[in-house]
Amino acid sequence: MIKTPINAGNNGEGLNSGALGHQLMVEYYGCSPERLNKVDHIRSAMLEAAKATGATVVGEVFHEFNPHGISGVVVIAESHLAIHTWPEYGYAAVDLFTCGDEIDPYKGFDLLRVELSADRFEVREFFRGRLEPLTGLLPHKPAVMNI
Amino acid sequence: MIKTPINAGNNGEGLNSGALGHQLMVEYYGCSPERLNKVDHIRSAMLEAAKATGATVVGEVFHEFNPHGISGVVVIAESHLAIHTWPEYGYAAVDLFTCGDEIDPYKGFDLLRVELSADRFEVREFFRGRLEPLTGLLPHKPAVMNI
Repeated sequence: MIKTPINAGNNGEGLNSGALGHQLMVEYYGCSPERLNKVDHIRSAMLEAAKATGATVVGEVFHEFNPHGISGVVVIAESHLAIHTWPEYGYAAVDLFTCGDEIDPYKGFDLLRVELSADRFEVREFFRGRLEPLTGLLPHKPAVMNI
Repeated sequence: MIKTPINAGNNGEGLNSGALGHQLMVEYYGCSPERLNKVDHIRSAMLEAAKATGATVVGEVFHEFNPHGISGVVVIAESHLAIHTWPEYGYAAVDLFTCGDEIDPYKGFDLLRVELSADRFEVREFFRGRLEPLTGLLPHKPAVMNI
């Protein structure tokens, strides 16, 4: 894994200093059902998305479901990109998890938006693995936050 | 992919009706550095975690980094489980993304907490792919929320 914590937060306030990972959780709606159901297209788009972020691909798995739907993951030296498609709903769930200052997950997000022909989307952004001591965590019960 | 939306929300208020996916984003801190750096152990723990949730494994990729750290993904018929480890910080980032009412990602979370010897953790829970019409999304710019 890339060892350097992310120093350049995108909010300009240093809020993200010390985070090891940067994750975009993306919902793409109104996508082309045909594109969402072609494993060759999804695989190619995901590998291109990884390349667009600046990442190095180290492994991949794609699976085609019967009667429809595709799941796929590209493992990169800087974490992973994952996709699950529901062609019947024109919907795809995507995660772009990257590490290091040199990788820009938004470039992968942009590429996939075009490749899936999404007409609506939602992006949630997270910084993961903060090295500062955590407070408020319970040792025996998960801290759950519903979003 | 499992086609049935999740009907039984865990808040008892029906808030999660209509969501296609259920995702736990987990940070495990204070883990055993030795365990986080053994690819055989991580692979075995992730496959056991998938089994604990009730999922069916359809593919996997694990990668060992030099000098240390492991990335791995288990693709399941009900989405995926992913892990990235930083043994030098005793930290692992895990995602458990499942679909369908029959699968319980918290069982995978519990198993991994033990297998990684985590002494602190944080869990964030999401319901993904809501079928209801979305409002407030901008067509040309991602809606970004910093967590």
